[in-house]
Amino acid sequence: MKPLGPIPAGFEAIDGELAIGGRPVSGWAEEAGRTPLFLYSRDRIERRFAELRAAMPEQIRINYAIKANSFAPLLTFVSTLADGLDIASGGELEMVRAVGFDLSRVSFAGPGKRDVELEAAISAGVTLNLESEAEAGRAIAIAERLGARPRLAIRVNPDFELKGSGMKMGGGAKPFGIDAERVPELIRHIVDAGCDFRGLHIFTGSQALSAEAVIDMQAKVLDCADRLAGEADVTLPKLNMGGGFGIPYFPGDEPLDIGSVGAALEQRFTELPETLAEAELFIELGRYLVGEAGVYVARIVDRKVSYGKTYLVTDGGLHHQLAASGNFGTVVRRNYPVAIASRFTADAEEEANVVGCLCTPLDRLADKAHLPRAEVGDLVAVFCAGAYGASASPSAFLGQGPAIEMLV
Amino acid sequence: MKPLGPIPAGFEAIDGELAIGGRPVSGWAEEAGRTPLFLYSRDRIERRFAELRAAMPEQIRINYAIKANSFAPLLTFVSTLADGLDIASGGELEMVRAVGFDLSRVSFAGPGKRDVELEAAISAGVTLNLESEAEAGRAIAIAERLGARPRLAIRVNPDFELKGSGMKMGGGAKPFGIDAERVPELIRHIVDAGCDFRGLHIFTGSQALSAEAVIDMQAKVLDCADRLAGEADVTLPKLNMGGGFGIPYFPGDEPLDIGSVGAALEQRFTELPETLAEAELFIELGRYLVGEAGVYVARIVDRKVSYGKTYLVTDGGLHHQLAASGNFGTVVRRNYPVAIASRFTADAEEEANVVGCLCTPLDRLADKAHLPRAEVGDLVAVFCAGAYGASASPSAFLGQGPAIEMLV
Repeated sequence: MKPLGPIPAGFEAIDGELAIGGRPVSGWAEEAGRTPLFLYSRDRIERRFAELRAAMPEQIRINYAIKANSFAPLLTFVSTLADGLDIASGGELEMVRAVGFDLSRVSFAGPGKRDVELEAAISAGVTLNLESEAEAGRAIAIAERLGARPRLAIRVNPDFELKGSGMKMGGGAKPFGIDAERVPELIRHIVDAGCDFRGLHIFTGSQALSAEAVIDMQAKVLDCADRLAGEADVTLPKLNMGGGFGIPYFPGDEPLDIGSVGAALEQRFTELPETLAEAELFIELGRYLVGEAGVYVARIVDRKVSYGKTYLVTDGGLHHQLAASGNFGTVVRRNYPVAIASRFTADAEEEANVVGCLCTPLDRLADKAHLPRAEVGDLVAVFCAGAYGASASPSAFLGQGPAIEMLV
Repeated sequence: MKPLGPIPAGFEAIDGELAIGGRPVSGWAEEAGRTPLFLYSRDRIERRFAELRAAMPEQIRINYAIKANSFAPLLTFVSTLADGLDIASGGELEMVRAVGFDLSRVSFAGPGKRDVELEAAISAGVTLNLESEAEAGRAIAIAERLGARPRLAIRVNPDFELKGSGMKMGGGAKPFGIDAERVPELIRHIVDAGCDFRGLHIFTGSQALSAEAVIDMQAKVLDCADRLAGEADVTLPKLNMGGGFGIPYFPGDEPLDIGSVGAALEQRFTELPETLAEAELFIELGRYLVGEAGVYVARIVDRKVSYGKTYLVTDGGLHHQLAASGNFGTVVRRNYPVAIASRFTADAEEEANVVGCLCTPLDRLADKAHLPRAEVGDLVAVFCAGAYGASASPSAFLGQGPAIEMLV
């Protein structure tokens, strides 16, 4: 038996079945006309924003990194809740344009921006988080050609990292951002070139569950920003403090204590240095805002036994849920939170392996899980599917095609 | 410094640049109008088939598993060289239908076949490789409803595995196929139900580079097939012996010695048992046929230094080359064969990290590689990109969209 990850609190049952948006998942599957499908709960996203705003100091702005989930109806909804949107490609710029979001509240980070992407962003008034001096040079040249005054921020590769982070994105040599020691000179260059200097972006990692680690990181980010601004002799109009707020995926994971994070930040904000006194202070989150709001639902198409082990074969799989299969940035595969959605309140009574329909041994959704007895036709739910699911999986693999997505 | 995987033999240079199909890659990039792109060499695929046919006994039929690469022009071309095609979904059935392939030479394996897929396959005269007794029951019921005589083969989960296989798909409990000990009974059931029994499919693993391991596996497959047919008191019209032929991806990998494999098979075929005397004997390959024929080409958009390390940031990445990034069935990341395509004959003179354009530390194409000095605008080639590349990667991730694919 292997444990399953923790199901996010607050999911209800109707007639013994997992319910989302006040309706059993089988109802949504019927409406969709087929499985698998992703169901994203509007209500859970709204509550997450509300809880976060309640915990954070009033002056904190919350940006949504759309890479986590850019499904158009979800993006449209989140754009009414977020203070800004962060994009990572020209394709994502078109997505935020399509939902009618104020492009002056959009920033664009990413280490490999092409000239056409820089041009589109500058023309749209999007803030570029510059990833290198060379990129700064290209952006300024393009802006000159366009006769535009570019909004330029600098992404800093700091000399510290987010401890216990699922993905380290700062500390030591990295493809992201500009090494802290070179930032003051680039700030001066941008200001002297007459560009609209929009401040700093300091992102050190993601998926941290320790409040202590996040508090430590945020303190260092504020210190770092102050130091770099001071050296460049500027005040910062804006500081993107990064994100890093994680969600529990695996057995033993505990939710991040955002109350502590907010309290530490509140305390810290009482003594902001002059360089930051006028700055708009942002945190940038993706997964934390939408991850737990999503459930991936697949149908069991076969129940089989091989050498005494039970397999529940679903019509879903890694083509929609690469991370849950353990094939995306994971060294040791662990089980996501998974349940038999159509028997959500039934007692677990057997050990079963939940697999996808792909003809590869990589396609596993839950190994040796303790589950209610399920039959062909039952629905399986994979939780924490709201971020890095549909868009971060190889949906064309084996000709399967994408899953249906619904904001409910 | 970390070594790079071995570049497949036979790639040429024109004016110092990597050439494919008699043309430098920059020419293809220009024709494509943008990068990244996948270039698949028609000539290399043709030669691979020819070499394989020369090495194998004459009676061996070669099936192509289209999951490896189903790009329509490539599939059209390969379908003129292969004796049969193997599909793994209803989506792939539509692909082989679209290229006009004789559907009676198509077989369909996969553990999670939906009823609609079974129906489409039976109507089309495709052979189903049954994965469970329950699937057999569903197929027979659907065929009755359709008034069709279904072509049914059985996928065997054998009690042995392919040694040294990159992916084990037999031996012990598995979601694939039917445990060998239960196969004779199912054969009888299929025959007695009046279905067109098409034989057995025994697939034990993939990506083996040891001829000894493949020879051992094929011998066991033939023994197993004979035993199961004998127990069921049938002769086999067809035996799909599986594949498992690997290609070198990583430092130290050596090509599979197909000459030895063919010689052992030739010897073995001189003494085929009665159960197999009339059988069509197939091997089923995907990666081996097309993997080395493909090159993924991305352009360097930034060259940057962080804490003394050089990063070449390309416009490609894991959204097209998930496996090369080390995030698909790999525990320890190793470098694929990678080169600076536009300086293919230049001497290596620096250590550089080649990364993709995605804003995630997972997006690595070559770590600490010894390469010629490359600049913005140069083209990077990732070799062994002909299989499980474009279709097995999350092309929608971060709004990047798919790469261009060209058969050249």
